[in-house]
Amino acid sequence: MKFKAGDTSPQGLRARIRAALGHEPCDIVLRGGHILDVFGGGFARGSLAVSGKSIVGSKEDYDGKVVIDCTGCFVVPGFVDAHVHVESSLATPFRFQQAVLPRGTTTALWDPHEIANVHGAAGIRWALACADMTALDLFILVPSCVPATHLETSGARLDAQALAEFREHPRVLGLAEFMNVPGVLDQDDDALAKLTGYAGFIRDGHAPQVTGKALNAYLCAGIHGCHESTEIAEAKGMHVLIREGSCAKDARTLLPLVDAFTSSVLGLCSDDRNPADIRAEGHIDHIIELGLAQGLAPELLFRVAAFGAARSYGLFDRGVLAPGYLADAVVVQQKVTGDWRAGFTVRDVLKAGKLVNADELARFADSHSRSVVPVAGRQNINMAPVDASNFAVRAGAVAPNALCRVIRVHEGKLLSDEERHLLPVREGMVQADPGRDMLKIAVCERHHGTGNVGVGFVAGFGLARGALAASIGHDCHNVTCVAADDRALVAAVNAVRELDGGIVAVDEHGAVLASLALPVGGLMSHDDPSVTADAIDELKRASRLLGCVLEEPYLLMSFMALPVIPALKITDRGLVDVAAFDFVPVVCEG
Amino acid sequence: MKFKAGDTSPQGLRARIRAALGHEPCDIVLRGGHILDVFGGGFARGSLAVSGKSIVGSKEDYDGKVVIDCTGCFVVPGFVDAHVHVESSLATPFRFQQAVLPRGTTTALWDPHEIANVHGAAGIRWALACADMTALDLFILVPSCVPATHLETSGARLDAQALAEFREHPRVLGLAEFMNVPGVLDQDDDALAKLTGYAGFIRDGHAPQVTGKALNAYLCAGIHGCHESTEIAEAKGMHVLIREGSCAKDARTLLPLVDAFTSSVLGLCSDDRNPADIRAEGHIDHIIELGLAQGLAPELLFRVAAFGAARSYGLFDRGVLAPGYLADAVVVQQKVTGDWRAGFTVRDVLKAGKLVNADELARFADSHSRSVVPVAGRQNINMAPVDASNFAVRAGAVAPNALCRVIRVHEGKLLSDEERHLLPVREGMVQADPGRDMLKIAVCERHHGTGNVGVGFVAGFGLARGALAASIGHDCHNVTCVAADDRALVAAVNAVRELDGGIVAVDEHGAVLASLALPVGGLMSHDDPSVTADAIDELKRASRLLGCVLEEPYLLMSFMALPVIPALKITDRGLVDVAAFDFVPVVCEG
Repeated sequence: MKFKAGDTSPQGLRARIRAALGHEPCDIVLRGGHILDVFGGGFARGSLAVSGKSIVGSKEDYDGKVVIDCTGCFVVPGFVDAHVHVESSLATPFRFQQAVLPRGTTTALWDPHEIANVHGAAGIRWALACADMTALDLFILVPSCVPATHLETSGARLDAQALAEFREHPRVLGLAEFMNVPGVLDQDDDALAKLTGYAGFIRDGHAPQVTGKALNAYLCAGIHGCHESTEIAEAKGMHVLIREGSCAKDARTLLPLVDAFTSSVLGLCSDDRNPADIRAEGHIDHIIELGLAQGLAPELLFRVAAFGAARSYGLFDRGVLAPGYLADAVVVQQKVTGDWRAGFTVRDVLKAGKLVNADELARFADSHSRSVVPVAGRQNINMAPVDASNFAVRAGAVAPNALCRVIRVHEGKLLSDEERHLLPVREGMVQADPGRDMLKIAVCERHHGTGNVGVGFVAGFGLARGALAASIGHDCHNVTCVAADDRALVAAVNAVRELDGGIVAVDEHGAVLASLALPVGGLMSHDDPSVTADAIDELKRASRLLGCVLEEPYLLMSFMALPVIPALKITDRGLVDVAAFDFVPVVCEG
Repeated sequence: MKFKAGDTSPQGLRARIRAALGHEPCDIVLRGGHILDVFGGGFARGSLAVSGKSIVGSKEDYDGKVVIDCTGCFVVPGFVDAHVHVESSLATPFRFQQAVLPRGTTTALWDPHEIANVHGAAGIRWALACADMTALDLFILVPSCVPATHLETSGARLDAQALAEFREHPRVLGLAEFMNVPGVLDQDDDALAKLTGYAGFIRDGHAPQVTGKALNAYLCAGIHGCHESTEIAEAKGMHVLIREGSCAKDARTLLPLVDAFTSSVLGLCSDDRNPADIRAEGHIDHIIELGLAQGLAPELLFRVAAFGAARSYGLFDRGVLAPGYLADAVVVQQKVTGDWRAGFTVRDVLKAGKLVNADELARFADSHSRSVVPVAGRQNINMAPVDASNFAVRAGAVAPNALCRVIRVHEGKLLSDEERHLLPVREGMVQADPGRDMLKIAVCERHHGTGNVGVGFVAGFGLARGALAASIGHDCHNVTCVAADDRALVAAVNAVRELDGGIVAVDEHGAVLASLALPVGGLMSHDDPSVTADAIDELKRASRLLGCVLEEPYLLMSFMALPVIPALKITDRGLVDVAAFDFVPVVCEG
């Protein structure tokens, strides 16, 4: 529990009291804006006065060392991202805050489960070390399912005992998205040990399409919230988080849940959102704008974005604009005066009493991002160079064609379908058939040098030539590649290897058209978020040049390696039928 | 923070999961009632299924070892008393739970500040020891102001260091009502040390009529909630608790604050409520009924009564009827079907999965109440017998009359006024004048044998003869007495002394008309709450027989000793002008 604290020394308290009494000037005064009353509802004209890290007045006027005229603006509490994998922004926490703090996100609840799949406990320790240095308040929910399944090879395994190390850390709120629903229902020892090990802490949920008595059983484990639920009544006492990521976009569907009654038990979250989308549309501010566009009242949306999420997760020191609370505040301006539907711009952000300055954040990241690394001196890619022999798919019988299982992808969905197609065979090996959009997909184990390579076929990318590859492949983050031919496949995987982690697009000659190095765990860049966003845009353009028809080919590729989401997926150990929770052969028998 | 826990062993979790899946019968099933959806709003027909201490289903039907038909009834989460001095029920915690559990109160936040004023840290330790034994969940907020002022003699003094002992106890949520507002505004060292010592914990408020920048300064101390506020906007981020005690009755005025938006940040509380009122009207259930009578929606009131208070104070394991939450539930029946305005009766109460049984509670209290005492072998009243000389008020000059300061009391108010009246003088001593309702009031120090006696005059009781006395006198709980003549005064004080604490009414001959022994600290009885309620009724009848015109003369008398509430009060050390925060003479100069 984090109740109101601020500077906890008697001197600090004395300074706040003197400022509040008007005996000394406040550090900052936001004067004359419309201030949100999170407890009572509505906006009221007044001044927000700040001393140190805390609010000391939310109504009366004060003298301030810095006075900011907020006439015509609205002052709301800093936004909370209630569930995020910072790694999915392709940025270190120092770069992530650079992208989101100026947009009003002052607190984020981080499940560092991508880096934990790569580096295990060391990855979580790195996340905690970074969190101690950022101005953005990063609280950690410890990844509960590393790896997600027994069907793949992750960089590390975290059992209940390994997770216990983090329980008492002041930034740790509990256990992150407990994806292992079958483990709970089957009363699996390790699953129950993880859950009971965090009894009395938050144990967050992840229960897409789980209903009825199975959901009841899952909730008996003390599950707290869920970013995969679609109805409050169906969530049965779980806090529903309204998500708008780069791939999973639920906000338009879920925002109608927001009303006066529910606004204190809902939160907003980004989950997985790339830097290009953050730059183009926004972060939590974007979800609020989506709600405003639907005609929802601003006082409800701003309440959900700050207070709803903060209180639901036990953060009692923020989310309210009143004396004694942390001075996390956002000054917003309607794009069209008098019309919230048209959205707003963030004019100023106060984080713990300090005005957020984009240049300062950039300088801080420049000097700090590289100084903290998850595992010193370790390469991200521990695998030998590949050649075409690694990706051969042997046909079962001597025939011009082979009937194969093919993964069918869909734009904007993490779900895939299983299809069966006849694919050409040459010299006993099944071939891709780009003319019919039948491509090869491969996952190469990159953590332990096992040489594991899973190879299959995929439809829906539309690549006419070349290949896309990345060291991002949920959740184990092996090197994942989609290719129109084997030469490009080999070149793309080896290019990712040579980058020591990153994302590439290569043409049919094996030439790299676009690339992004991700030196931190093969997941994150040290570069400025705008540089990374440019690189993402460039990679997308290159994919289109190769004939790709998807908006988010790299993200979608990365989720084809995640065997907890139906129907047909692929890991470094082979093709997985998710419903059967087991491997299946690429080439159908008989 | 108390997040959802229940039985934290893997075996316990396994049993809950098996019950939720329907693989084993549940322990109790409340079948077919209308179940409150605290997150989404409204009631929905379903079954509440319980295994062990936890809810395992809130919708689907289950087989149960015990099945209770709830057709036509409403099932709501157990009520929370968000601020109570159990001592004011004149009952030990074992007797208190007997009075309130069957009325649906399943959790109470106890500020044991009466017993702490008598026995200091030993009193708080006793409260914690009792709380470990009751079925009613008693959480402790540590008394922050013992004694309330420097103008009186308490049994103990608790400084910041003494309070620190309790901070990490699992039942301690923080610091109770911080009454020392001037201490905060003046930045008094001890006040600031107490507050910063509990940084990060709840620090509850007590700020009647504090507004503007003074309130801002007070809130800078991290103040959490307040049972003395009258407006949410004015409370500025404090949780407002709607109180209905025996003396302070705010509910009718404050209930209109309840709406869909506010229902998650408000709570209900009883503060000081005697057993006769609990028996006659109810406890938290009574406040809900007052709201229903005003036409407020039941889903809002039941939400405030459980979820609002629980969440506001960080109790995340209760207040919601959904799987994984503590099985605290109340089955209520409308008095008039279809008409909530007419109120409801509590038919069944589940506390942590067990059906509350009044007889069992009585037997438990019979066998346990006397086994835990705050301080073994110590008398409650440590003072010599008094005689008339202790109560003489010397007139300043030789005259038939003396102009005196007189405390004016008002029914139902803790506030008094200062009046000035000419009182008769005999043999140089000022006399009471019962014919004009001018009575003597005296406070006799009872903890340390100092012999301190404060004597003054009071108007408004209407006693024609005899005296009322008690070992309850807020907050120091010295022996307090109101008398029509000195003989009755002496007899009444000595009668309380002979009881070793209690309440008495004596006639003009010194004969005891009615009495109640309070062997626990001179504050609480071990007897059945109905016996205590009968004794209170008997004492009130006796007071009326003596001419008293007040409904609650003993309570009102006890608050005339509390020098933090205006205007003229009296302690063992003399008459106090509260505004001046200093002593004043009874007889006016010149």
